[in-house]
Amino acid sequence: MSSVSVETFPAVNMLDLEGSGQVERTNWVLNAPKPPGICSEIVSAIRENVFPCGNRFFSVCKEPRLRNVMPFLEGVFPIILLCKNYKISKFKRDLMAGLTLASLCIPQSIGYATLAKLDPQYGLYTSVVPPLIYALVGTSRDIAIGPVAVVSLLISSMLQKIQDPLVDPTYYRKLVFTATLFAGVFQAAFGLLRLGFLVDFLSHAAIVGFMAGAAVMIGLQQLKGLLGITNFTNKTDIVSVLESVWKSLHHPWSPFNFIIGCSFLSFILITRFVGRRNKRLFWLPAMAPLISVILSTLIVYLTRADGHGVKIVKHVKGGLNPSSVDQLLLNGPHLGEVAKIGLVIAVVALTEAVAVGRSFAAIKGYHLDGNKEMTAIGLMNIVGSLTSCYAATGSFSRTAVNFSAGCETVVSNIVMAITVFISLQCFTRLLYFTPIAILASIILSALPGLIDLSEARNIWKIDKLDFLACAGAFLGVLFGSVEIGLMVAVLVSFAKILLISIQPGAEALGLIPGTDMYYSVEQYPMARQTPGVLIIRVKSALLCFANANSVRERIAKFASQKVGTGDKENAGVRTQLVVLDMSSLLNIDTSGITSLKELQKELASQGIELAIANPRWQVIDKLKLANFIGEVDSRVFLTVREAVDACITPKMAAV
Amino acid sequence: MSSVSVETFPAVNMLDLEGSGQVERTNWVLNAPKPPGICSEIVSAIRENVFPCGNRFFSVCKEPRLRNVMPFLEGVFPIILLCKNYKISKFKRDLMAGLTLASLCIPQSIGYATLAKLDPQYGLYTSVVPPLIYALVGTSRDIAIGPVAVVSLLISSMLQKIQDPLVDPTYYRKLVFTATLFAGVFQAAFGLLRLGFLVDFLSHAAIVGFMAGAAVMIGLQQLKGLLGITNFTNKTDIVSVLESVWKSLHHPWSPFNFIIGCSFLSFILITRFVGRRNKRLFWLPAMAPLISVILSTLIVYLTRADGHGVKIVKHVKGGLNPSSVDQLLLNGPHLGEVAKIGLVIAVVALTEAVAVGRSFAAIKGYHLDGNKEMTAIGLMNIVGSLTSCYAATGSFSRTAVNFSAGCETVVSNIVMAITVFISLQCFTRLLYFTPIAILASIILSALPGLIDLSEARNIWKIDKLDFLACAGAFLGVLFGSVEIGLMVAVLVSFAKILLISIQPGAEALGLIPGTDMYYSVEQYPMARQTPGVLIIRVKSALLCFANANSVRERIAKFASQKVGTGDKENAGVRTQLVVLDMSSLLNIDTSGITSLKELQKELASQGIELAIANPRWQVIDKLKLANFIGEVDSRVFLTVREAVDACITPKMAAV
Repeated sequence: MSSVSVETFPAVNMLDLEGSGQVERTNWVLNAPKPPGICSEIVSAIRENVFPCGNRFFSVCKEPRLRNVMPFLEGVFPIILLCKNYKISKFKRDLMAGLTLASLCIPQSIGYATLAKLDPQYGLYTSVVPPLIYALVGTSRDIAIGPVAVVSLLISSMLQKIQDPLVDPTYYRKLVFTATLFAGVFQAAFGLLRLGFLVDFLSHAAIVGFMAGAAVMIGLQQLKGLLGITNFTNKTDIVSVLESVWKSLHHPWSPFNFIIGCSFLSFILITRFVGRRNKRLFWLPAMAPLISVILSTLIVYLTRADGHGVKIVKHVKGGLNPSSVDQLLLNGPHLGEVAKIGLVIAVVALTEAVAVGRSFAAIKGYHLDGNKEMTAIGLMNIVGSLTSCYAATGSFSRTAVNFSAGCETVVSNIVMAITVFISLQCFTRLLYFTPIAILASIILSALPGLIDLSEARNIWKIDKLDFLACAGAFLGVLFGSVEIGLMVAVLVSFAKILLISIQPGAEALGLIPGTDMYYSVEQYPMARQTPGVLIIRVKSALLCFANANSVRERIAKFASQKVGTGDKENAGVRTQLVVLDMSSLLNIDTSGITSLKELQKELASQGIELAIANPRWQVIDKLKLANFIGEVDSRVFLTVREAVDACITPKMAAV
Repeated sequence: MSSVSVETFPAVNMLDLEGSGQVERTNWVLNAPKPPGICSEIVSAIRENVFPCGNRFFSVCKEPRLRNVMPFLEGVFPIILLCKNYKISKFKRDLMAGLTLASLCIPQSIGYATLAKLDPQYGLYTSVVPPLIYALVGTSRDIAIGPVAVVSLLISSMLQKIQDPLVDPTYYRKLVFTATLFAGVFQAAFGLLRLGFLVDFLSHAAIVGFMAGAAVMIGLQQLKGLLGITNFTNKTDIVSVLESVWKSLHHPWSPFNFIIGCSFLSFILITRFVGRRNKRLFWLPAMAPLISVILSTLIVYLTRADGHGVKIVKHVKGGLNPSSVDQLLLNGPHLGEVAKIGLVIAVVALTEAVAVGRSFAAIKGYHLDGNKEMTAIGLMNIVGSLTSCYAATGSFSRTAVNFSAGCETVVSNIVMAITVFISLQCFTRLLYFTPIAILASIILSALPGLIDLSEARNIWKIDKLDFLACAGAFLGVLFGSVEIGLMVAVLVSFAKILLISIQPGAEALGLIPGTDMYYSVEQYPMARQTPGVLIIRVKSALLCFANANSVRERIAKFASQKVGTGDKENAGVRTQLVVLDMSSLLNIDTSGITSLKELQKELASQGIELAIANPRWQVIDKLKLANFIGEVDSRVFLTVREAVDACITPKMAAV
């Protein structure tokens, strides 16, 4: 060791060593307070989640006290607070927004009901009760509640495996209401138990892929209405659907459906283009679907085109939502399966609602409590399932219309619900001659909003593995089923986390000029490595069974190579000290500790010392418990700098 | 902002600011070289794994060249190198060790063969060919190759689900050989493709629990032999076995089996105790099983106890291993299932062999190449499956005996194999009257070595979640099956990694006196927080979809609370700056970036600035790609210290 000359340690001269200070600081590391155990951490996590009092992001924190009931009620029913501050000027804007919303909502609801394989009136029912319930308990000011395309597809694609709606529509409807009830119960439970974070488990990238896949799926399903096909497949994957279309084209089919559908689709898309160009005409694309329905119905009625193969809606039952309490199947052979479907619906519906609510809240600058939103959406679906509604949630496209129509509060939803209710009472008979192709074109026109190509490109640019989750979800939906798509997305997302957390990597660190910091020499080429000293940082978050061996081998390999071989002045200096910067190691397990012990032995056999710098709370605690380091240990340092200085100085003195 | 007085920023006066230096260093952060993409990282990981040349831990690195065949051959067949340096003194020790090993191996092999539900001679066959093959290609000097208890249990418990060995022993044997072939192929493939790290995926804690569970299982199975039960269950879970024993006890049974078994078990355990007390008598516990077999056989022969209900081994076929090439079922209905079973056997056998090889290599101070070991074990099982052997691996108990008998090289395995071979040729007829109960007691006596209570206690002390994996594996084996135990262990282990990697935590940092470092104030109570500045470090390794929202909310909550409320001099100072120490964030995804953007907006609305310190390579790159930070950005700093100084100084000037 004494052959190492002073010149090889230029870094040492730069710092005024605080000898006693270093020892004292090492004691700080060794005698840190005991970190919280796993039990107390779990308890505190639950407490923080369930009783977030003092957290200003959860507005319903005040416990109900007799002398203070009003704030509690205001917390549970935000509409009370709303009424207090409501003005006539606000109402004017809400009225306009609500009417615009209704004009878009009525045709979309009928379309989505056919997508869910239900009669048209069920879509309208779903646009009456859930928005009213949401208005009582929800906190978003912009969200437009009602049936949405993806959830409708989800319901029909999953439930028709249990019961074909063409064979027994009554039983199928019962299944739908039961699944809606389960979805509502799950959603409300997530909210009440403050499990809102569960919705975060569908990553953004996965949602982008899933939505795009669902949109393509829905678009393909519309070929049935657009082409007037009678025998359409029940499967949703792209192969089956295209096969089904191909077969139908070889049978005689009426081109009128296609002509009507396409011409009105063009009309809707053109109005949207105009509306985008001229912001004052925002109502035009919102009204276009209703105008299309009215015009096409008129045309069919006047020309009697239904006699020439044009499929029409026929009878739509009017009147108020009937009760569906007696239609719920709370015992029976399919209960478990329906509950599982309810869970999937709950998660997908919440994901859409929370995403749409959050993004518009961010634009207007107010905060949305995810857990409270979930409770509200759960409640509205529970009530919905009792009043002949199927699963509702916040719609992307209609929320945007509501926003651009200048809505101020949730009152626009109430206006919309009342308008739909009036239509149900008075105008359902007028829908008799509405061609089914027009419903297909209304659904088709809403799909481009679900496919976010620019975001997909963005994800590709930023993170290739994220894009894999996105593509996996997309292809899973397209070639498998909706559930497979969701599963692929979740699996890829979590596999990515695992991969990054345990990738066995180690990087050499160097001193950043002008500071006391040792950072990666790859990231900062100007960082200077000290000859004879190897400073290593583990690149993963955990040193555990899955990577401990690889990390150990990599560090030993690093250490056995000469440091600074490329650099003339450092060439030939053998490594004498390895400093392990543990600052980024979140945790270590028994395998990790074993491999550290082995590493130390291995290095010692080559005459290399091992020092540890800046271990985290959990890590130092475990190292002490495992007797890898003692109460007083000369190999532990608070900072890398101190480790380098303390280990090199005695050797310099010996020279 | 100007209302904040100079007195509230005491930390600033301590440092001589290097204004220009800071800006320059921020540019180092912003203009770091592009990090390697995901593709190049994967390629380099594969290259490092498959072509580890230059890594001194993989001794077979030299590519075969015509002028240099010898080193290559020596790499493939380490025995060549061994022969070069072999001395007569070494052989003496190896001979002694080999003979001791054989005396333990013969009774154990017969016992393990009955555990695998095969005839006794197959256990002996397995102790002949695999050790010889291993001696040619293996690198461990101490390992004792042959049948082991856990693998035998695994084979019988999984394969008897396909074919009951009592109904059709020939087909069952074919399945065993086929599964052994698959196991060997998988093991060799793992080794050749350098997938050795796969074996690390069974965590240490899981192995401890799994081994203990398997030992209890095996012990319960021995009740059959010990009690002489005829109708024994085929299931391995504790409930079925105890039920089966309970039922049998109500039928007439012979107590002689039990008496013979228990008395010789006591004899073996007593000799072990004596052997531990007196190290020079190490051979006594090793010889005890053979002595027991000889004595008990003699007793039964002389007393003709087989007529009184004592079950005996009866005919054991002698002679050399017959070929089993024609017995392999390489097509047929069960091929997929057998391949799956082969994979499980391969992993468990490798886990045991690598663990036992590594621990004794560590004691003697030589390194074992995991990948090469796997290839060797795979090869010996492939050859074994062609010569009527079932899956062999390194045995814990016999390796310990080999070690204490003073083995020098793998030659002791050759000696053992030749001894077993001679026994097969000459002495199998003598085993006719060996009572089955004695085999049960030999197996039982080997079990305590598989149950490592002190290690389990250690795991509990160090890591509660690790203990959960351990307990899960143990209970899974006990109450479910061997596969369920393995699955539980792997799932719990990976769930733990996920949990730690994405736990949504944030901790406040403070300046450690005497340094420029900002560390957790919880871990280091002496760390000083700067009033008006909140320094936060994310506690997880990734800021991703699963935790980004929670982390954002937690930081915003931190920021909205007053800093230093407990401290008189700092009380009442509002937070004006949040510094995010990103040093431990390994990666970030699109959701994480979105939540950072939201956090910045949220903080800005309260007049709080957000600064970023020390982002890692991957993170800064993604933040730049996502346009969260620009090419020149005043919010990015190399160190926390610089962020605090740079943001506070202008405000001081303004005062």
